[in-house]
Amino acid sequence: MPYVNIKITREGATTEQKAELIHGVTELLRTVLGKNPQTTVVVIDEVETDNWGIGGESVTLRRQRGQ
Amino acid sequence: MPYVNIKITREGATTEQKAELIHGVTELLRTVLGKNPQTTVVVIDEVETDNWGIGGESVTLRRQRGQ
Amino acid sequence: MPYVNIKITREGATTEQKAELIHGVTELLRTVLGKNPQTTVVVIDEVETDNWGIGGESVTLRRQRGQ
Amino acid sequence: MPYVNIKITREGATTEQKAELIHGVTELLRTVLGKNPQTTVVVIDEVETDNWGIGGESVTLRRQRGQ
Amino acid sequence: MPYVNIKITREGATTEQKAELIHGVTELLRTVLGKNPQTTVVVIDEVETDNWGIGGESVTLRRQRGQ
Amino acid sequence: MPYVNIKITREGATTEQKAELIHGVTELLRTVLGKNPQTTVVVIDEVETDNWGIGGESVTLRRQRGQ
Repeated sequence: MPYVNIKITREGATTEQKAELIHGVTELLRTVLGKNPQTTVVVIDEVETDNWGIGGESVTLRRQRGQ
Repeated sequence: MPYVNIKITREGATTEQKAELIHGVTELLRTVLGKNPQTTVVVIDEVETDNWGIGGESVTLRRQRGQ
Repeated sequence: MPYVNIKITREGATTEQKAELIHGVTELLRTVLGKNPQTTVVVIDEVETDNWGIGGESVTLRRQRGQ
Repeated sequence: MPYVNIKITREGATTEQKAELIHGVTELLRTVLGKNPQTTVVVIDEVETDNWGIGGESVTLRRQRGQ
Repeated sequence: MPYVNIKITREGATTEQKAELIHGVTELLRTVLGKNPQTTVVVIDEVETDNWGIGGESVTLRRQRGQ
Repeated sequence: MPYVNIKITREGATTEQKAELIHGVTELLRTVLGKNPQTTVVVIDEVETDNWGIGGESVTLRRQRGQ
């Protein structure tokens, strides 16, 4: 009954890509630790680039500089 | 001074229902552990069904199949 | 399939009290939102008082002053 | 490589204020613990006032009473 | 620069298994979303079975019944 | 009433350093957003280096290579 929280910046991940993440991480926990997929919960948070910082500045600013 | 985070799928919980959750969990912590309601913080996150997975697939897909 | 995370200071909560919290919050979500208890996950984190701050200082210091 | 999550109510924090939070907390971790800013991640969550509770009631209700 | 938090019950996951989880989820984010592994952070929390609830009761109790 | 969660690797942060983090981040929220320190909650999680991954591997392995 693992719980996984994936946080990414909101930059256009599609429904299909999110479904792949959910499926992939659930499989990973089944394969590595034998966890039951039926009670594995995955929550994806998509965070605005203004609200995500790395290197002391927001991702919005980094994207403007081409990073 | 407990902190409680409740994550649910975004499927129409009303303001009144969310107020009930806040009140109920604060009372629970007061009753069971003697925690002071004045410093008990409750944060409710409502998550899109595309972003919530269980059993290796999204809740959106499960709802389409009637689960 | 809600997920609830309860954070409290590590100050002697018993196994019975933690079982009451798990049962109580699961019931609350069933009563208020009709959530299925079988897929409601509750995780309790007990945090050292040195690692919990409120009012700009640690709970350890507050407890030393009798708060 | 610290990870910091800041949760505040959604009440009009500006892009500039959020940039100040990201910069300030990254600097704090560099100064106090010598953490490398390049791998310090900061995520700010802005939470609707209906979804934030303290004292057993939502911030929406507290704001209506002038608190 | 994704951030992933994996919560599992503390029931003997080895260092090797945890390394597999870290590697696997980092690869998943690279493959599905093109995320840079160098800034992908994974944090694994191992939670005591007394502190993890599902179905309204602790995992400790479920394990005693053979579930 | 902000809530801040700081996650760092468990590598010997002292009680004094943790008190500085608590005080510093509470002050930052007061200065930047006018948040009341009395209801600002800070929780520090210290995570074993086996359980923290970056670049697809654990911090334990990185430390062994001198990173």
